[in-house]
Amino acid sequence: MIKVGIVGATGYTGVELLRLLAPRKDVSIKVITSRELQGTAVADLFPNLRGHIDLAYSAPDTEELFACDVVFYATPHAVAMKTVPQLLARGVRVIDLSADFRLRDRALWEKWYNVIHESPDLLGQAVYGLPEVNRKQIVDARLLAVPGCYPTAIQLGFLPLLEKGLIDTGSLIADAKSGVSGAGRKASVGSLLSEASESLHAYGVAGHRHLPEISQGLNTYAGEEVKLTFIPHLTPMIRGIHATLYAPLRNPEVAVDLQAVFEERYKDEPFVDILPKGQFPATRNVRGSNRCQIAVCYLPQNNMVVVLSVIDNLVKGASGQAIQNMNIMFGLDESEGLQVVALLP
Amino acid sequence: MIKVGIVGATGYTGVELLRLLAPRKDVSIKVITSRELQGTAVADLFPNLRGHIDLAYSAPDTEELFACDVVFYATPHAVAMKTVPQLLARGVRVIDLSADFRLRDRALWEKWYNVIHESPDLLGQAVYGLPEVNRKQIVDARLLAVPGCYPTAIQLGFLPLLEKGLIDTGSLIADAKSGVSGAGRKASVGSLLSEASESLHAYGVAGHRHLPEISQGLNTYAGEEVKLTFIPHLTPMIRGIHATLYAPLRNPEVAVDLQAVFEERYKDEPFVDILPKGQFPATRNVRGSNRCQIAVCYLPQNNMVVVLSVIDNLVKGASGQAIQNMNIMFGLDESEGLQVVALLP
Amino acid sequence: MIKVGIVGATGYTGVELLRLLAPRKDVSIKVITSRELQGTAVADLFPNLRGHIDLAYSAPDTEELFACDVVFYATPHAVAMKTVPQLLARGVRVIDLSADFRLRDRALWEKWYNVIHESPDLLGQAVYGLPEVNRKQIVDARLLAVPGCYPTAIQLGFLPLLEKGLIDTGSLIADAKSGVSGAGRKASVGSLLSEASESLHAYGVAGHRHLPEISQGLNTYAGEEVKLTFIPHLTPMIRGIHATLYAPLRNPEVAVDLQAVFEERYKDEPFVDILPKGQFPATRNVRGSNRCQIAVCYLPQNNMVVVLSVIDNLVKGASGQAIQNMNIMFGLDESEGLQVVALLP
Amino acid sequence: MIKVGIVGATGYTGVELLRLLAPRKDVSIKVITSRELQGTAVADLFPNLRGHIDLAYSAPDTEELFACDVVFYATPHAVAMKTVPQLLARGVRVIDLSADFRLRDRALWEKWYNVIHESPDLLGQAVYGLPEVNRKQIVDARLLAVPGCYPTAIQLGFLPLLEKGLIDTGSLIADAKSGVSGAGRKASVGSLLSEASESLHAYGVAGHRHLPEISQGLNTYAGEEVKLTFIPHLTPMIRGIHATLYAPLRNPEVAVDLQAVFEERYKDEPFVDILPKGQFPATRNVRGSNRCQIAVCYLPQNNMVVVLSVIDNLVKGASGQAIQNMNIMFGLDESEGLQVVALLP
Repeated sequence: MIKVGIVGATGYTGVELLRLLAPRKDVSIKVITSRELQGTAVADLFPNLRGHIDLAYSAPDTEELFACDVVFYATPHAVAMKTVPQLLARGVRVIDLSADFRLRDRALWEKWYNVIHESPDLLGQAVYGLPEVNRKQIVDARLLAVPGCYPTAIQLGFLPLLEKGLIDTGSLIADAKSGVSGAGRKASVGSLLSEASESLHAYGVAGHRHLPEISQGLNTYAGEEVKLTFIPHLTPMIRGIHATLYAPLRNPEVAVDLQAVFEERYKDEPFVDILPKGQFPATRNVRGSNRCQIAVCYLPQNNMVVVLSVIDNLVKGASGQAIQNMNIMFGLDESEGLQVVALLP
Repeated sequence: MIKVGIVGATGYTGVELLRLLAPRKDVSIKVITSRELQGTAVADLFPNLRGHIDLAYSAPDTEELFACDVVFYATPHAVAMKTVPQLLARGVRVIDLSADFRLRDRALWEKWYNVIHESPDLLGQAVYGLPEVNRKQIVDARLLAVPGCYPTAIQLGFLPLLEKGLIDTGSLIADAKSGVSGAGRKASVGSLLSEASESLHAYGVAGHRHLPEISQGLNTYAGEEVKLTFIPHLTPMIRGIHATLYAPLRNPEVAVDLQAVFEERYKDEPFVDILPKGQFPATRNVRGSNRCQIAVCYLPQNNMVVVLSVIDNLVKGASGQAIQNMNIMFGLDESEGLQVVALLP
Repeated sequence: MIKVGIVGATGYTGVELLRLLAPRKDVSIKVITSRELQGTAVADLFPNLRGHIDLAYSAPDTEELFACDVVFYATPHAVAMKTVPQLLARGVRVIDLSADFRLRDRALWEKWYNVIHESPDLLGQAVYGLPEVNRKQIVDARLLAVPGCYPTAIQLGFLPLLEKGLIDTGSLIADAKSGVSGAGRKASVGSLLSEASESLHAYGVAGHRHLPEISQGLNTYAGEEVKLTFIPHLTPMIRGIHATLYAPLRNPEVAVDLQAVFEERYKDEPFVDILPKGQFPATRNVRGSNRCQIAVCYLPQNNMVVVLSVIDNLVKGASGQAIQNMNIMFGLDESEGLQVVALLP
Repeated sequence: MIKVGIVGATGYTGVELLRLLAPRKDVSIKVITSRELQGTAVADLFPNLRGHIDLAYSAPDTEELFACDVVFYATPHAVAMKTVPQLLARGVRVIDLSADFRLRDRALWEKWYNVIHESPDLLGQAVYGLPEVNRKQIVDARLLAVPGCYPTAIQLGFLPLLEKGLIDTGSLIADAKSGVSGAGRKASVGSLLSEASESLHAYGVAGHRHLPEISQGLNTYAGEEVKLTFIPHLTPMIRGIHATLYAPLRNPEVAVDLQAVFEERYKDEPFVDILPKGQFPATRNVRGSNRCQIAVCYLPQNNMVVVLSVIDNLVKGASGQAIQNMNIMFGLDESEGLQVVALLP
């Protein structure tokens, strides 16, 4: 029985962790914290959890966290970095869904997040929790950084191409579309239904915080510095990310079976689903599931590879991936509790 | 040329006033105020107004308001009551879209709004701006209270029945469904797309602030106290109110042609559209328009009259009706600038 | 291991059956039929099922159905009545999600569905599968009629009141709001996103096919004929039914604790969740789950009981309830495979 | 008074023409045809037109079309090509909203539309109705081909860059997102709310029918053959197209003020709105309006120009642009009847 604590479970990644963990018989949720809501029943905030989660929120400084085997942080950035060291010192493993430990480069992190990092020494220790790349390191991770939602969809889409050196890394494009839940459960005018519904717009054009995280990954897989243009768009739906990726082949004169490259790369991956040639993914195919669904095609007249990659931003893009990492860290079946079929329609 | 000022045009009723007034050649918008946004171009907040409205927000205490012929208040409740007397004193006519002057009974208002009314003497002077009932008084109104959105849809639906004494007033039911824009353009978790989309729920079951306003009207038309159960529901769409009204006939044994009653009552009304028998209204039929579309039918086996009444909550339920009142007050064609065809689809 | 067949699984209740049955280790799906799509992989039609369901559609007359322990019909009405007798004759139990066996009265059925019933003798044998009422009869059912979506939400809401004779049955009102998936997965203009989104309208005002089914139930619970006005509304969301029920107390002078009545009636029901006083249900609280969530309140000034009842029309309103019945029929834990947490947001 | 006929006004471009033309005093709608719906009142199909359009549908072969000054075709492709010659022969000007006369190359048209063109000789006479490019030729056009929705948004976005030879035409990318109304008002499973809502997916990846039309335009503006990768996406909203365009600068070492290039190119255009630097367009900014709103920015580290271009697919992408062309053809103010403010929210 794995004893679990969750710090800050008042947002969407928090409720999603609870949705996925509540039915499990091998996991016991011991404590859920929130500074603002301590004393409130979790199921009063999230009525879908009535009868599934009977806990109330605890104060964040509760000693109970130290009795857990693993603590998830479902907090905004710049929170985990303050208290993670205490947990690690007491032998508690940490899975951080926030951005605090995703970048290895402290200066880069501080530039993009505009905060002094309070645990910079942990940046080198943290394991970046993309199992399709780092499965071996995840096994022994003490501190695990769960990838962001855009970075998950985009890295999994480019990965097979970059690892094999198939594409010209000088002008990669990632045109990404996200549901509104990616903005979190906080009151903001831009996320109101009356503002975000029946509309679509780009944002963060000059630079989104997920860009350095994506680039860090792509550079590693490519073994060289890639040039990536990343334009995210806010889309009128709750869940889902659709990343449309564009890259020219490096050697168009050499025939390559891209479909086979993708199928081979992911053939043992439980949560990456390469669609048959001619099928294209839709975000609803993975709503509520931990899958990344990918299609690849090549437009010879333009020498352009187009990859379509979809995830549920709250599952494979956050809480599901966090649990996938937990499963690996604790020697469980990696798919345990995650073989949920997507909700369609 | 009517010189217009708008106080507090940073919300949805404000931008809607501007959408409807901007194209008019007989109206000149002189000043638009906002405490928080003074100096900001209105079109920076509402980019649909670029090229249509070139003003920036002024401070709310600007002298320019006094030079206007009419000032609209598009503010939350308990704002207009503070400054309206100064405008009236200077001869400026006021059209208040907020709730401040809708109830004649001060105690009732203070009970429901939980604030001391600062201009209680004006409650008796204000004209309730439902043209289908009060057209004559509106002509000379100095202070006009624009009806609320639910009250407009519900009163227009019950009106012909009550005026003729056709229904049993002991158990009226108004089951109303509203789009999210009714909650205004303020950051709140409950109005987030991720919360309000793909869901529907009732609220204010124990008592909604529009209830006393509706009852005040219905009591007047009935000439007796009606008992109304009013349950509003939040619906996953931006605009629109659909009121489904239920009432037993008072004398079921007396045959009455309800279709004719409604058609006759509203035959000269430019903004009430009685559908032919067998057609039912949809909120999208009136999206962006100033119409109230109504169907009536009778279920003889249950002795139940069912009235379906739809409006766009921001137009006939707020800004369009405000302008309709302005047109009457200034002796213009009542439909001037309001014969916009609804946007469908 | 229960061997399952599904007839006609090309619609939403079909894919929902598969979503809920696929993960089960005690159920084996043997055959899925479709006349139009025989030979097509089920997962090609519903890509959320990739890797979960490996079957292709079979012709509807396949012998394989006879080897099943139970066959679900997820067909339009007037299909099951043609072939169910053959299955029953071969000892296969049948769970029919369509309307064919919901009414006991043949003439009534033929009037509302405008078809001659081809298996009228089975109308008396079929068990109406509302476990909260008929659990005992369900155990031995050979032919089970799964209740409709509106009937489920509305009957569960009125049930405690009628059983105890608390309300005046002379003027019950059920104002119901449904998501568009209730109209099924068939091409129709009225269900297009461009038609049904951003709008709400009533339909079936003069009489909806679910009315006789609801009345049959309510009459039984009341022990007398009730008069019900039922107005369904099409709501711009995919899933969910919200029924708002109105009824006067029969004896308003007698104090009654309605909250206790509801909690007591459903205290052992795994899928009926009575909310604490002051909380109101939202359809998203039950999206993807088999729950019915109910709140009850009383407005003394009007002597009006208001019940709010929500379900997911495809789960408790169809496929989830079908499986709940299967669990009972086969002596399994009634909740097996159904303790899914609703997907929120 | 311009006498107008509309052929095939049963879809969304038809109702949109009527919405925009109905209020005009200088236009008289004489006849609206539909083979299927002849005799039906137009306002019965589109209840937003009640009181605005009093005509019923006529048979398509009505003589009345010949008495019109101009006839709009709001039909699927391969309809206009059959009967347009008769109208032209009788001196009636034609504005075709379908694809029949958009391509100058007959073979290309027949390849993409898979039909024999029945009026190939008219392909050379038809004027392509993008006023920002062809205003002079439009004045005298007898047969006007209204550009498609994607082509309008994409061409206006690339135009200033191509005319000045600023970008490398070897790898242009247009990632476009469209609302569902682009698929028209015909029953199809893929456009159902239950299928298209809460989801996003690419389609036509291997080649969309708008590609040759876009390329024809871009090649002309560039004066050379451009290589364009065009990926359209279906987005869960009714109206709107957002085109995100990517192109490398041809000479990155030469400083160029892209903002000024765009502002200068469109400074006299009534319906192209270049946003100030740092603002990005949203489709809702133009909902219901005839505007194209554009932002341009340059990412120097990647040498990438990103253009964001939004339109309402039914207005500037179809019926609004058709009317803009009519205004030019008849010597009216180009903006007549089109200065509608977008509906926001």
